[in-house]
Amino acid sequence: MQTTAENLVSFFLETRNDSERICKPLEIEDYVVQPVDFVSPPKWHLAHVTWFFEEFILKKYKKDYQVFHKDFSYLFNSYYNNVGKMWFRPMRGNLSRPTVHQIYDYRHYVTDQIEELFSKGVPKEAEDTLTIGIHHEKQHQELLLTDIKYIFGHNPLFPKYDDAFVENPIQDFDRKWIEVDEGLYEIGHQDSDEFCYDNELERHKVWLNNYKISNKLVTNGEYIEFIDSHGYRDFNLWHSDGWAWLNREKITNPLYWHFKDGEWFQYTLGGLKKINPNEPLSHISYYEAFAFAQWKGLRLPTEFEWEAAQHQFKWGSRWEWTESAYLPYPGFQKAAGAIGEYNGKFMVDQRVLRGASVATPAKHSRPTYRNFFQPYHRWQFTGFRLAK
Amino acid sequence: MQTTAENLVSFFLETRNDSERICKPLEIEDYVVQPVDFVSPPKWHLAHVTWFFEEFILKKYKKDYQVFHKDFSYLFNSYYNNVGKMWFRPMRGNLSRPTVHQIYDYRHYVTDQIEELFSKGVPKEAEDTLTIGIHHEKQHQELLLTDIKYIFGHNPLFPKYDDAFVENPIQDFDRKWIEVDEGLYEIGHQDSDEFCYDNELERHKVWLNNYKISNKLVTNGEYIEFIDSHGYRDFNLWHSDGWAWLNREKITNPLYWHFKDGEWFQYTLGGLKKINPNEPLSHISYYEAFAFAQWKGLRLPTEFEWEAAQHQFKWGSRWEWTESAYLPYPGFQKAAGAIGEYNGKFMVDQRVLRGASVATPAKHSRPTYRNFFQPYHRWQFTGFRLAK
Amino acid sequence: MQTTAENLVSFFLETRNDSERICKPLEIEDYVVQPVDFVSPPKWHLAHVTWFFEEFILKKYKKDYQVFHKDFSYLFNSYYNNVGKMWFRPMRGNLSRPTVHQIYDYRHYVTDQIEELFSKGVPKEAEDTLTIGIHHEKQHQELLLTDIKYIFGHNPLFPKYDDAFVENPIQDFDRKWIEVDEGLYEIGHQDSDEFCYDNELERHKVWLNNYKISNKLVTNGEYIEFIDSHGYRDFNLWHSDGWAWLNREKITNPLYWHFKDGEWFQYTLGGLKKINPNEPLSHISYYEAFAFAQWKGLRLPTEFEWEAAQHQFKWGSRWEWTESAYLPYPGFQKAAGAIGEYNGKFMVDQRVLRGASVATPAKHSRPTYRNFFQPYHRWQFTGFRLAK
Amino acid sequence: MQTTAENLVSFFLETRNDSERICKPLEIEDYVVQPVDFVSPPKWHLAHVTWFFEEFILKKYKKDYQVFHKDFSYLFNSYYNNVGKMWFRPMRGNLSRPTVHQIYDYRHYVTDQIEELFSKGVPKEAEDTLTIGIHHEKQHQELLLTDIKYIFGHNPLFPKYDDAFVENPIQDFDRKWIEVDEGLYEIGHQDSDEFCYDNELERHKVWLNNYKISNKLVTNGEYIEFIDSHGYRDFNLWHSDGWAWLNREKITNPLYWHFKDGEWFQYTLGGLKKINPNEPLSHISYYEAFAFAQWKGLRLPTEFEWEAAQHQFKWGSRWEWTESAYLPYPGFQKAAGAIGEYNGKFMVDQRVLRGASVATPAKHSRPTYRNFFQPYHRWQFTGFRLAK
Repeated sequence: MQTTAENLVSFFLETRNDSERICKPLEIEDYVVQPVDFVSPPKWHLAHVTWFFEEFILKKYKKDYQVFHKDFSYLFNSYYNNVGKMWFRPMRGNLSRPTVHQIYDYRHYVTDQIEELFSKGVPKEAEDTLTIGIHHEKQHQELLLTDIKYIFGHNPLFPKYDDAFVENPIQDFDRKWIEVDEGLYEIGHQDSDEFCYDNELERHKVWLNNYKISNKLVTNGEYIEFIDSHGYRDFNLWHSDGWAWLNREKITNPLYWHFKDGEWFQYTLGGLKKINPNEPLSHISYYEAFAFAQWKGLRLPTEFEWEAAQHQFKWGSRWEWTESAYLPYPGFQKAAGAIGEYNGKFMVDQRVLRGASVATPAKHSRPTYRNFFQPYHRWQFTGFRLAK
Repeated sequence: MQTTAENLVSFFLETRNDSERICKPLEIEDYVVQPVDFVSPPKWHLAHVTWFFEEFILKKYKKDYQVFHKDFSYLFNSYYNNVGKMWFRPMRGNLSRPTVHQIYDYRHYVTDQIEELFSKGVPKEAEDTLTIGIHHEKQHQELLLTDIKYIFGHNPLFPKYDDAFVENPIQDFDRKWIEVDEGLYEIGHQDSDEFCYDNELERHKVWLNNYKISNKLVTNGEYIEFIDSHGYRDFNLWHSDGWAWLNREKITNPLYWHFKDGEWFQYTLGGLKKINPNEPLSHISYYEAFAFAQWKGLRLPTEFEWEAAQHQFKWGSRWEWTESAYLPYPGFQKAAGAIGEYNGKFMVDQRVLRGASVATPAKHSRPTYRNFFQPYHRWQFTGFRLAK
Repeated sequence: MQTTAENLVSFFLETRNDSERICKPLEIEDYVVQPVDFVSPPKWHLAHVTWFFEEFILKKYKKDYQVFHKDFSYLFNSYYNNVGKMWFRPMRGNLSRPTVHQIYDYRHYVTDQIEELFSKGVPKEAEDTLTIGIHHEKQHQELLLTDIKYIFGHNPLFPKYDDAFVENPIQDFDRKWIEVDEGLYEIGHQDSDEFCYDNELERHKVWLNNYKISNKLVTNGEYIEFIDSHGYRDFNLWHSDGWAWLNREKITNPLYWHFKDGEWFQYTLGGLKKINPNEPLSHISYYEAFAFAQWKGLRLPTEFEWEAAQHQFKWGSRWEWTESAYLPYPGFQKAAGAIGEYNGKFMVDQRVLRGASVATPAKHSRPTYRNFFQPYHRWQFTGFRLAK
Repeated sequence: MQTTAENLVSFFLETRNDSERICKPLEIEDYVVQPVDFVSPPKWHLAHVTWFFEEFILKKYKKDYQVFHKDFSYLFNSYYNNVGKMWFRPMRGNLSRPTVHQIYDYRHYVTDQIEELFSKGVPKEAEDTLTIGIHHEKQHQELLLTDIKYIFGHNPLFPKYDDAFVENPIQDFDRKWIEVDEGLYEIGHQDSDEFCYDNELERHKVWLNNYKISNKLVTNGEYIEFIDSHGYRDFNLWHSDGWAWLNREKITNPLYWHFKDGEWFQYTLGGLKKINPNEPLSHISYYEAFAFAQWKGLRLPTEFEWEAAQHQFKWGSRWEWTESAYLPYPGFQKAAGAIGEYNGKFMVDQRVLRGASVATPAKHSRPTYRNFFQPYHRWQFTGFRLAK
């Protein structure tokens, strides 16, 4: 996002504010817990995104900058080996201190310091890092929501987060197959003024055969048919790893689904609700998406097919699994230094997801955005569309 | 403790109050976390002891009693299979809800209900169960303190709990060997009016050979000599299991000890402090106590030797490891129903500790009290004295 | 066993021969496998007992002794840290080499060397070590049989070892309660000329209350009643650890039992056979023995009760679980050097078994013998008798 | 491979014979062990490839066929869920029976039955299945060699398999960069008469940018430079998963390498040998190949780049890691029934390797062959070439 320093600062302040708004419905206790390794306590997210600005901007560009607390770099570094040792990730939920109030103080201190720094003029590269830092915080806003959902959704009291949150917008139109002709397509971000991550580059040519892609996401109702047809018990539909996963974890339905008294319910940010078959399916793994497609005699699109056709369908409520592994584009160059640890080092056994979700903040999605997770993850708002 | 119903109720109220007083220095966040399986969140302790009164007294003896919350029995049962299913122990720290405020409300509700019930006259067996419930809460007061120490002592910020807490009272007298003659000794609680647990009965005869037992606990200074003599590296001093434990867990010193800049420090409830060699050693496993004794060419006393000699020495600041396995006394009868799950079912691979500790509440220690833990546990205020 | 050097050598040769006789029915393949950590490949047993003689006698007392192979000390040491590093126990079954033929060559080499050494006169302490070595080999003869049974009994083809092996001798007499009067009893081995292990010493006084002990082992038929009464599903009968073990391992019957077409079968060294209800029960854990006794309203005897009464009943076909933890006797001194690693270092979380089993070699049982295992082990020929 | 029935049978007999020839240097014991989950005992390989012919051909096409042994389908099925339950893979090494002799009898029985069946005329689809079965056995011939190497190479005695086996053929020519022009390339097997697996189809277009690919494999000498430059300690060179793998497994060099007295040695099928820096590197994971390329400022080729350039360089001694994930080609159709479990169900988290190795049998390599393994595997003869 090309922006004058002033615009950049107001984008920064707006983003800082958004994170705190997301946490408004929380009790102090909700900020602390970590029910599973891959979920972080909300207070950790709030502090970690703050640490990013302190570590990569204030320490570097602000003269005589005093860190807020000498131990916070150790506590709130996530995975940047270049910056030093860090507290072990699965133990984030063991820490009652610093308190939530101290973390809000930390946030405000750093926000003010950044504002002051940028009011005085900074090098272009500081602006670039601030831009990355803002987008980094936006990514964590999405994780804040999905982690809060995990924390509440795994509490037997099923607390509500916000009744008004629209989690499952119905796609109220008929299913159709969009036809795309074979040919060479340009894939990846245009080298323009808009922000993008290194993994969206270089823009390059990909040959695609003729294909068809659905204009609509798979719905709960369609997935219930798959369950009722014993799709979870037919090994021929599953990858070998998926079948092992399903048996080890005793998976028989999407995450947050509960079968009670003959009916399906799902935990949503608005509480436990009866499932609406017309709503788009959510919280499924790649394994489940693949098995469903096998059962239909269809397949998932590749990320290239998705990108080449995305202007012809509506997207944005689900991160959509693709058939593509997360790999570097031709000519990929990872960024220098710690920022280079952002993307490239995960390009080995993850799947690409395209689109965006109901939890994605404004100004944080674009047609070339590549999200990625291991194929077994389900706590994001994941869904899929079919291709053939 | 022989007490009229009135005395019993004031004993109850005093005990309820004590638990809350222990938690005074805590922030909300401190009530929530569970850094390791065997440590419970403080809010869980506060709720669990309350549940005990609700489950075993109010539900049974109070007419038309309305439970405070329908899910709390599931959430706050610890290990009483007779009462129904329970939330999985290592996941207690995953629950942000109910909040701390709700749990205090629960406490006050149940306290009031018990007070009201007992003001009107109850059967003798309700009084007996209340007595057990009070002692049960006292046991959890000790655990509250040791669990809070664990939570703070494993936080890299090392927060203080209470500067005034006297954790390491020096035994300011010379070491002497108390000689005890061989003969038949009576061991176990006298069937008197004083409360005791089922595992302290039946009182029975034990033959003891001549032995000597130290009048003084082993000190930090003596233990540092053991460390400096490479006691942690000489497998001949250790049990086979102890040696495996030490290597697997990379143990080289007592829990909460830190070696910095050539000096030993220990985390205490008053913060991180330089170690005083004259203070009694604490936070060691049975394995370490045994290895130290081997290194000295001495041994630990059995629980019978300890009990037969205990009136001749000062005890009460450390739970003292003994050479005895936790086994039933001749004629042991476990209590009927759920209360019978209290002691007997653990009599298989644990060690007996005798005495009491700085964390033990008033009126909760006596010469025949048998505490018990697996030999590797160190988070209690454990120490030992030598015998030969 | 008091014996002249000549008698000792013939005792040695007879014992060496016995081990090889036990392996006669094996195919080469059977010598190699290790289906579970605590079972060793038969070829390992044959080599390990040989290594004991080489390490503790030939290297020490035979001038210019040439070891058979420089790597065998590393490969065939079991747990003697004093002797040096050793191959990791759970990986014994990974080694195809040395071959079975090489191990027999090793055996014969060492047997000959010992015979030659002792023909020329040796110090008394060499004779003592040889005596220990012979008893050590006898212990491994029992393990050879139980490990072979494990290997065959966990092969879906259920191969036979030896049709003629009498595994389940019926106790063809009525059950009676033997009454024993309270009083002081002497327990432990008499300091006589007969061999015993260090853990059977010192002989010491123990006070016993009045008790009754059964003259007969528990039978398969009685145990089937326990199963049919859902004894495996009633947590009140079990230790907490036992209940966790049973659920984790999905235990519903003794080891080697199979329920097919409405009938119970058991794998024996003579193959898979229908269970005879009159035969003594075998292959149960301490947990199961305890639960059965609870169900009967009875208990297991302590090791002291067993020893004080053992001359009044028939024993020798089952190792019998007792209620006693494996602990040192008063005045216990572990042997010096590596031999001292034999017993003492296991005195922490195991149970004592008394008696002997159908797999125990001749001259290797006595009333004071203390066998010991963790409470969950079942692959020995374990049984029990009741007391009250 | 288009072949008359007669040619096919002689191809079959030759292949059957090859497997037995590979096992000639083994002792009986060597056939039995399984030192790690992913290695199978040689006798299992010999039986499993035999079972394939019995299960998919004899049972289906031979009238009144009597299976050799009723339990062998359960014992020797690998991962074909469609065929029924199977013995758990990590427990293959627990089975001493059936003996090696019985397995050779099984082989000869099935070989004879197939020969007889095909002498009389069979449907075309039986011929097709036989062709697959032959190629399946050839794949297992490669695994036989790599598993034997693993068994011997992890035995502290380092037994030799065969002194004459040429494991490390030096590429005696200069390194050069082969330049390839950008454009559309056809990838995948031509639908001709030659045999190929389903994963090599459909042949399809791929756009490639300009690239350069090395004419030569990376050598031991080059890799030693990487080690000496502390490549194993610089996290910036590694994938996040690779770094975790390296630290968890304590990896500091390729598999089979040993550093003794200041020099590098490697275990080969001819025994332990000093490393020759000019020989091609072997037994490295994808993670290591990637880190080496990062260190060089270069990269691995994709499988498409490899295939498009392969006629310009020499290949065949190492399976070569590529930058490509193992994914279906456009239009991929998995084969029907059990045979369809061969390839498709693994297309989720593995990497493609191209080429062939010194262990690959004759007639079992071609330019379009896609081998695949998880990125951490090293026991195959894996190497790599660089691209840019």
